[in-house]
Amino acid sequence: MSAVQTVLEAGGSPVSRMMGRLEERMAAITSGYGPELVRHAGETIAAGGKRLRPLLVFLAAGVPPPETDGLVRAAVAVELVHSASLVHDDVLDRAALRRGRPSVMAAGGREQATATGDLLFARAFAELAGGGSGDAVRSLSHASTSLARGELMQRADAWSGDVAESRYLERCRLKTGVLFRAACELGALEGGGEVDALGSFGERIGIAFQILDDILDVTGPPERTGKPQGTDLLDGTVTLPLILARERDPELAALDLRSVRTQAQAAEVCRRLGSTAALPIARERALRRVADAKAMLPSMPRRQLEVLELVADGVVERYS
Amino acid sequence: MSAVQTVLEAGGSPVSRMMGRLEERMAAITSGYGPELVRHAGETIAAGGKRLRPLLVFLAAGVPPPETDGLVRAAVAVELVHSASLVHDDVLDRAALRRGRPSVMAAGGREQATATGDLLFARAFAELAGGGSGDAVRSLSHASTSLARGELMQRADAWSGDVAESRYLERCRLKTGVLFRAACELGALEGGGEVDALGSFGERIGIAFQILDDILDVTGPPERTGKPQGTDLLDGTVTLPLILARERDPELAALDLRSVRTQAQAAEVCRRLGSTAALPIARERALRRVADAKAMLPSMPRRQLEVLELVADGVVERYS
Repeated sequence: MSAVQTVLEAGGSPVSRMMGRLEERMAAITSGYGPELVRHAGETIAAGGKRLRPLLVFLAAGVPPPETDGLVRAAVAVELVHSASLVHDDVLDRAALRRGRPSVMAAGGREQATATGDLLFARAFAELAGGGSGDAVRSLSHASTSLARGELMQRADAWSGDVAESRYLERCRLKTGVLFRAACELGALEGGGEVDALGSFGERIGIAFQILDDILDVTGPPERTGKPQGTDLLDGTVTLPLILARERDPELAALDLRSVRTQAQAAEVCRRLGSTAALPIARERALRRVADAKAMLPSMPRRQLEVLELVADGVVERYS
Repeated sequence: MSAVQTVLEAGGSPVSRMMGRLEERMAAITSGYGPELVRHAGETIAAGGKRLRPLLVFLAAGVPPPETDGLVRAAVAVELVHSASLVHDDVLDRAALRRGRPSVMAAGGREQATATGDLLFARAFAELAGGGSGDAVRSLSHASTSLARGELMQRADAWSGDVAESRYLERCRLKTGVLFRAACELGALEGGGEVDALGSFGERIGIAFQILDDILDVTGPPERTGKPQGTDLLDGTVTLPLILARERDPELAALDLRSVRTQAQAAEVCRRLGSTAALPIARERALRRVADAKAMLPSMPRRQLEVLELVADGVVERYS
């Protein structure tokens, strides 16, 4: 994401140094569990991620961030929970690609992927335990519980012809918002900032991020998103663009998602969906959340405020 | 397990009261996440378990145990990690039954089971965070990481004709020993006991427990174990009875596990395995670990010592 580059430059070398320490620690963790884990999880956890959540941990702590071990561990913990959830999502979605490369699921099978996700998950809490803050553990475990609840909700709603926008937004909050919240809370705890306000900022940009992700699933392009267009449709996952398009196009409203079985069919639904006003309206929903998020940032040093606003804008400016 | 009854009587009403509080809290957690979780995980987490790990948490804290919220939470956390691992194991093993009832996997499918396990897992750390001890979080996350490593190891060794006894024992330590260790450590932390010594005791009886479990998979009877005889064989899981029998019976040594496909074939292999000395030798290995465990119990009040020895003996006296 170019916004991360922008922020790294704006944040200056302390942020870059902290991102470097994060990568080192992630690589050490991956290799520390032997060839099994490196083979299966290396692709997902050590390579190519946007590292947006760790960046939020650092920036919520301060700009420049305090260069402490505790802050690196907090960022690693958040990214490990995210990685664990990706590995398990790929099991659920039977995804062949993750970030344009073979998923753990495709490379090692369901068994390896389930156990690998569990390991990364547990390891996240081990990272935090080094610091010993009960608030930090509470925040991350709340985020992890929410992630799983969001996943259960998504499964319950799969293939449904009748998912309300409010229910979709609650799912975004659970699946993505609460971990963004935890990233900001952990940073604020370490940096001495306003935990609740920064957490609320994080939750909102997390929801916006998820809405954008769901828009990108429809618009592609696959060479940027790293997965075929319409993957959500093939999974039966009902997202905001489809919900909004169904309200506008009776043919889409009548469509049984189970009849969409090939990538060509999914691409055709995406095309039809793009001919309604669903995509710009969905984008507007995301932008509104970013504006809300920025409006609720507490008073803080001007430099930190500017950089956090940059990140918030970056969330909805991907590939646009 | 009758030993639990024995210990409940020996431990007296404070232990029973604490076990009651554990059940209440487990039930509240299951129902607190809505009908989804109750339907899918209720069978596994709220019903019928031996609750051996929570019992160890209580008894490692003292006899009678201190009746604190922190101790209940520690016991709940350990049992939730255990429940999460059962739910995920059932996904991996495609198990239809768990404790004689439909598994989460069978009732809700792979997707629900993966997310349900993740939720229980995350919830375990949320329980501990209430207490706020970094040592407790570290102990439980180490146990959780070990569980996943043990699972990866088991998958790597599946169907193998050449698993060394030492490797099998290391797998038992990772899959079962380290969580028993965490149970004792968490209890010791809360009760002010000797954490390392009680942890080592726990790890050894955990390994003995796993060996016994693997013996029971061969000997049954299914109406006691809640699963068909030879389930491990059908999974390709190579356990101590088979390792020892292969050293004694050339026909078993030559057997390709992949050729064992039906329950009838598995039962026949179990019968043949029972005609070697493998089962009594495996049982002896478990008994030796129980003796080691008892020998390393630190000095403590006589009542507590006696009760912990009772539990240790109980681990290898199931159904015998």
